Amino acid sequence: MSKGLIVQKFGGSSVANVERIQNVARRVADYKRKGYDLVVVVSALGDTTDELIELAHKINTEPSEREMDMLLSTGEQISVALLAMAIHKLGFEAISFTGAQVGIITDTAHTRARIIRINTEKIKEELKKGRIVIVAGFQGVTLNQDITTLGRGGSDLTAVALSKELCADECEIYTDVDGIYTTDPRIEPKARKIKEITFDEMLEMASLGAQVMQARSIEVAKKFNVAIHVRSSFSTNRGTMIIQEVKRMENVVVSAVTLNKNESKVTICDVPDKPGIAAKIFGQLAESGVNVDMIVQNVSHTRHTDISFTVSKSDLNKALKVTRAVGKAIGAGEVLQDEDIARVSIVGVGMKSHPGVAAKMFQVLAQNKINIEMISTSDISISCIIQKKFAENAVRALHDKFGLAK
Amino acid sequence: MSKGLIVQKFGGSSVANVERIQNVARRVADYKRKGYDLVVVVSALGDTTDELIELAHKINTEPSEREMDMLLSTGEQISVALLAMAIHKLGFEAISFTGAQVGIITDTAHTRARIIRINTEKIKEELKKGRIVIVAGFQGVTLNQDITTLGRGGSDLTAVALSKELCADECEIYTDVDGIYTTDPRIEPKARKIKEITFDEMLEMASLGAQVMQARSIEVAKKFNVAIHVRSSFSTNRGTMIIQEVKRMENVVVSAVTLNKNESKVTICDVPDKPGIAAKIFGQLAESGVNVDMIVQNVSHTRHTDISFTVSKSDLNKALKVTRAVGKAIGAGEVLQDEDIARVSIVGVGMKSHPGVAAKMFQVLAQNKINIEMISTSDISISCIIQKKFAENAVRALHDKFGLAK
Repeated sequence: MSKGLIVQKFGGSSVANVERIQNVARRVADYKRKGYDLVVVVSALGDTTDELIELAHKINTEPSEREMDMLLSTGEQISVALLAMAIHKLGFEAISFTGAQVGIITDTAHTRARIIRINTEKIKEELKKGRIVIVAGFQGVTLNQDITTLGRGGSDLTAVALSKELCADECEIYTDVDGIYTTDPRIEPKARKIKEITFDEMLEMASLGAQVMQARSIEVAKKFNVAIHVRSSFSTNRGTMIIQEVKRMENVVVSAVTLNKNESKVTICDVPDKPGIAAKIFGQLAESGVNVDMIVQNVSHTRHTDISFTVSKSDLNKALKVTRAVGKAIGAGEVLQDEDIARVSIVGVGMKSHPGVAAKMFQVLAQNKINIEMISTSDISISCIIQKKFAENAVRALHDKFGLAK
Repeated sequence: MSKGLIVQKFGGSSVANVERIQNVARRVADYKRKGYDLVVVVSALGDTTDELIELAHKINTEPSEREMDMLLSTGEQISVALLAMAIHKLGFEAISFTGAQVGIITDTAHTRARIIRINTEKIKEELKKGRIVIVAGFQGVTLNQDITTLGRGGSDLTAVALSKELCADECEIYTDVDGIYTTDPRIEPKARKIKEITFDEMLEMASLGAQVMQARSIEVAKKFNVAIHVRSSFSTNRGTMIIQEVKRMENVVVSAVTLNKNESKVTICDVPDKPGIAAKIFGQLAESGVNVDMIVQNVSHTRHTDISFTVSKSDLNKALKVTRAVGKAIGAGEVLQDEDIARVSIVGVGMKSHPGVAAKMFQVLAQNKINIEMISTSDISISCIIQKKFAENAVRALHDKFGLAK
């Protein structure tokens, strides 16, 4: 009798070399020995994907997306075969499959395909034989048999989607950190590992710069209510459960403090205060593929106003170019840039029902003599743009005042 | 209007690095520009296959054959994607496929699968669209969707089988030599490139040590009468055509001289001359996986006889071990070994209808004071085992006396 079905996903760093593959094999075998059915999703070895991309670009700087998928999908195929061999070595039965072989059917949007459905018969059949099933992450196949990939973080998506389709009892995402923390422990040593966090909080944290999981996989997990256990492949400690609803003490309003130092601020001065101007600026930015994050428009006392927004550092030059061109066309003034900013945010579903959280945040920053340049709020998060040099201080102060420390 | 369909196969050395892949792309594009339809079969880049095998053996010294196929088939998949990108760069339409995608259906004998059939609809469809079709060599898929590989030289087999199924006008095998020579030009500078050679002669040469093509692909080409053009990927010179029947001058009896220095001789002395003894010796060798090549049993004047045979050097130790054990069991004498031997052979369909060819060969060797240790003949070849130190001399003398020089 099976104790239940666990889907386990191991990222590239967990299978970066022979020793680590053997380590993963031992962990999988331990679970099998305990009586679980196992479906294991694996990413490409270490930097394989980046190396293949580099090779492709040497041949063609704009490679066909179909051929990129053909190329990159080999990375995970190598991983699953090697992991199967490592598990066999430990005396357990295992069988590897590509995304195509287990019927992970996607649309035709190469390099960022979406899963349409999964034919789980093959996996179920092999599980019934008592085998550990190993599935190549990050990849699928179109109805026309073309190989597709699911985009960055795609292996997480494979694991979540398989968990849903197979009604798995648990979906474990193995990574190189041992869970989600109340803030980055490198900044605040008193940071605590969070036992349970909601999908919404995790989504918010992902969009605010926490890099443990891609937002897309969490969205899918939320949609189908697939509980995720984020944990380390280098220890057996329990990690963090990402779930629908968390039962917490009433007074917990903030769950985590996040920091993102990867953004820059752009300000267009003296923008004519007429309807349609903002649409023009941000329409042009969107067309150029620039992802704008926070936007602040000051209340206008004259007929002119200042508009500020943040973009990721890698988009700054493109954003400046577009903004200057639009600014000129609409008769705006100077375009200013500021790279020395940081975004510090507090996240927590509790703040929905607790008024005064924003005020408390501003107060903590003021007490620490930290000036706030921009503010943005959502249902379950509040972000402030501050000077970069105050970033770590701000994180520690907020972490302390909202009672997150150990 | 298409000028015809050409299947081109490029081996691993032809696509060993970015420059060579680009070189192959230019050649393919040239043919397309001239108006040909093209199906291109590619092997794995350079030493990729050997590197993957090494990686697998670090994890499991006896890897599952199914998982080996899963692993090794990625090598060709990488090649086809990169070649497609390189061809796109030149402005031509191309599309790559795995063996599974084009429906190269095989049996389930992993690592040495046999092709059962090929579903050519997909290839024909893409050719109709004017695209260059690139197919991963060496691989296929079972009816159960498991990936298989076709064994050493499998990409040649893919090319020959596709040529047959698609009724190609020509099957070109690109390699690092520019054709089949009357003998190894490194030994005899007067060696000539052969314009046309029969399947039977080529098969004989392959089994006698010529390494241009694997015997298996030639057998299939012969069975389905697929003409093969062996040529160099580094020049545009015509190479050698391998065909069913060659129209030659009546006096051409010998087509080529081959040399194999990779064998060793084993002799069991004083074998009791009773029925069933040879069967016992060679049965045991076969069971141990030792491939025996030539066998000579001297005519017996007493009740005892000597039996000699040759094996490839890599099998020598195993062969000695088995032979000593069997020798002891049947009451034979000493087991001797000789590693300093060479096999020199003459090949030619002409010798069927020309008596005295063997006598002439022995005479040439005698004139050069070269002692013959063993003789073996087939319909279209004669081989002599001689002392290794005379090997090159023997090749040059035979090449000269049978009129093969430039």
